[in-house]
Amino acid sequence: MKSSIVLFFLLLLSNSLIARNKSTINSIEEIAIESNVLAEKRTVIVYLPEGYDKSSESYPVLYLTDGEVHTKHSSGTVDYLSKFRLIPEMIVVGIINTDRNSDLRPTLTRDKKLEIDEGADRFLTFITDEVIQTIDKGYRTLGYKVLSGTSYGGLFAVNAFITKPNVFDAIIAISPSLYWDDQVMLHKAQGLFSAGKAKGTLFLSIAEEQPIMTNAFNSFVSVLEKNPTDNVNWMTKKISDETHNTAVLLGQYYGLKSIFNGWSIPEQAPQNLKQLLSRYRKMSHQLKSQIVLPEDRANGYGQWLMHLNRVDEALELFKWNTKTYPSSTIAYETLGLAEEKTGHLHDAKNSFEIALNISRKNNPSEVARFELNLKRINDAIGKDQEAIIP
Amino acid sequence: MKSSIVLFFLLLLSNSLIARNKSTINSIEEIAIESNVLAEKRTVIVYLPEGYDKSSESYPVLYLTDGEVHTKHSSGTVDYLSKFRLIPEMIVVGIINTDRNSDLRPTLTRDKKLEIDEGADRFLTFITDEVIQTIDKGYRTLGYKVLSGTSYGGLFAVNAFITKPNVFDAIIAISPSLYWDDQVMLHKAQGLFSAGKAKGTLFLSIAEEQPIMTNAFNSFVSVLEKNPTDNVNWMTKKISDETHNTAVLLGQYYGLKSIFNGWSIPEQAPQNLKQLLSRYRKMSHQLKSQIVLPEDRANGYGQWLMHLNRVDEALELFKWNTKTYPSSTIAYETLGLAEEKTGHLHDAKNSFEIALNISRKNNPSEVARFELNLKRINDAIGKDQEAIIP
Repeated sequence: MKSSIVLFFLLLLSNSLIARNKSTINSIEEIAIESNVLAEKRTVIVYLPEGYDKSSESYPVLYLTDGEVHTKHSSGTVDYLSKFRLIPEMIVVGIINTDRNSDLRPTLTRDKKLEIDEGADRFLTFITDEVIQTIDKGYRTLGYKVLSGTSYGGLFAVNAFITKPNVFDAIIAISPSLYWDDQVMLHKAQGLFSAGKAKGTLFLSIAEEQPIMTNAFNSFVSVLEKNPTDNVNWMTKKISDETHNTAVLLGQYYGLKSIFNGWSIPEQAPQNLKQLLSRYRKMSHQLKSQIVLPEDRANGYGQWLMHLNRVDEALELFKWNTKTYPSSTIAYETLGLAEEKTGHLHDAKNSFEIALNISRKNNPSEVARFELNLKRINDAIGKDQEAIIP
Repeated sequence: MKSSIVLFFLLLLSNSLIARNKSTINSIEEIAIESNVLAEKRTVIVYLPEGYDKSSESYPVLYLTDGEVHTKHSSGTVDYLSKFRLIPEMIVVGIINTDRNSDLRPTLTRDKKLEIDEGADRFLTFITDEVIQTIDKGYRTLGYKVLSGTSYGGLFAVNAFITKPNVFDAIIAISPSLYWDDQVMLHKAQGLFSAGKAKGTLFLSIAEEQPIMTNAFNSFVSVLEKNPTDNVNWMTKKISDETHNTAVLLGQYYGLKSIFNGWSIPEQAPQNLKQLLSRYRKMSHQLKSQIVLPEDRANGYGQWLMHLNRVDEALELFKWNTKTYPSSTIAYETLGLAEEKTGHLHDAKNSFEIALNISRKNNPSEVARFELNLKRINDAIGKDQEAIIP
């Protein structure tokens, strides 16, 4: 029986997202950037969160290399994880390749036959000075930025962690080609840590791969282990049953969950206002921006607390909702119903009156419902008074 | 050294997809269906595969319940898995909810207080008679159909497996609510197996969930275990570190990989023509439609075989490509280069001449390249003859 109830409230909490009045199709935009840094025209694909057009919120941004391959599944994963509130909603920006070998590899190869030039630093400058600038100008972004790359793109992402530690708040490097150029990243990383300049969050994953990949990966992890610092938060994930080519979707999934570890609220227990506000303070700290507890979430936890007969905590949440979302008829109606149920009839009357006034201004279709609520309350108050008079 | 080479060819094979001239944005369409079965207007979201508009191919279809929540990540997963050739490209159709409790639950609940009606059979008729019909009429579909659902949607999918075993080729049931109505699905399934009518492919997953969920799940799996039949191919997956609410993306990922188990070609070894054609015969059998080895894939394996000095097998693949894709200049050029490299100069000359003729008709920008190839070959043939004359 107990398990059924927990299940019911889980469904209630997750169903609340279904009720949101949002478009079911995300906006996807293709942007051309005339790059001075690269001296060529480049294309980026931008996936906006569901409801972007109808909201005024700002969002963190996930930047991806190999955008033509990895933007779709990554934006699907962001959509999923954010719907279930394991990570925040994000704008996803995929940078389309022209010559990935040249763009993503950080140093001149020792193998002259391949005839490639160093390009990663230039490509990183393109991202920091032109792509990010374009996105920040064109969309509502928060300062929080993630860079994610795979294979050579993972090498590139690690290079960004090392050479520009102040640009990205978190780096996701999936099956990074750290063997490149005699494991040049190891030496660069060692230098960074020795200089005390390492900073940020770094997620690294490796699948079941060739020794050339895993050896370099393990050596790099050793550098991280030998240089503990409060300024760097790093984690690794071994992805079993997948190869270098097939581990990217899972790498992105675990990477996003890892860098937003602590974002989700444990499902097993309801949360009261104090606990929720504490969590949202931590979220705000991570995103360097004030993240406000959403109305439907406060409402869901309030319902759960009501069900558990933790009435005072439930009322506290519902009241917080009316103060934080003062034009929400649902907030006042929910508060009113809880007050009615707990015998606070005059408070309930007051809440329904406010809901009625708001609905008259903003949403006439709700007026009849609140009038009914009020009539029921007034009748109940009348009966109470009759009961007292004799 | 050996591992570097394998890695190189893996990248070559996977990079070939980057070269495809396809739009990087999939077409997403929203369709309204005036349902006679449900007596209401319903909405479905259709995600078309990359390049749908430019191809004439037909595709299998993945149908989803709870479309407003699960279509984006599922279509991202389909895009990813098909890009890396672990599953075929698919059209993804998400059915948007109006009243999911009524639509997805298969029997009248014993709990009269909930006041719900049975609706799953009616909703299934809506899908089979109206949604599938609409999709088959509006898009290029193969007969192969998958139904995937989660929670009540998983219960609904299992109900479809039992009540209409001839409609869907495969069913994905993620964290199905099999506890529903005193585990009514167990009895229905037992009846189906006893009558010898069970048929198709069934994938079931369960996360770390409430006992009410896991107990019913395990009981249902027992029914499958006790009723082995060649007509049913079933598999289960335990998804660790995830709950009922958070396991859906992974459930879909593993479900799709499982029902197309055998679709991917092992990465460790190159394949010759005979091996590849054998695999494509199996794929064709699964999709009940002829699936042809793609040109770029045959080309990639041919290059790999050339590198390993398995010249005859490489040439066989390149020749197959020119016969199967007779208007492809790349097929003739690749064959010509391989023939040149292996000393078959007159064959090479012939191949380059055909490439030149095709390019004159279809793609003038390539003409100069093939003329250069031809000149080089003619010079080489001339030198050979000079060498013989004296």
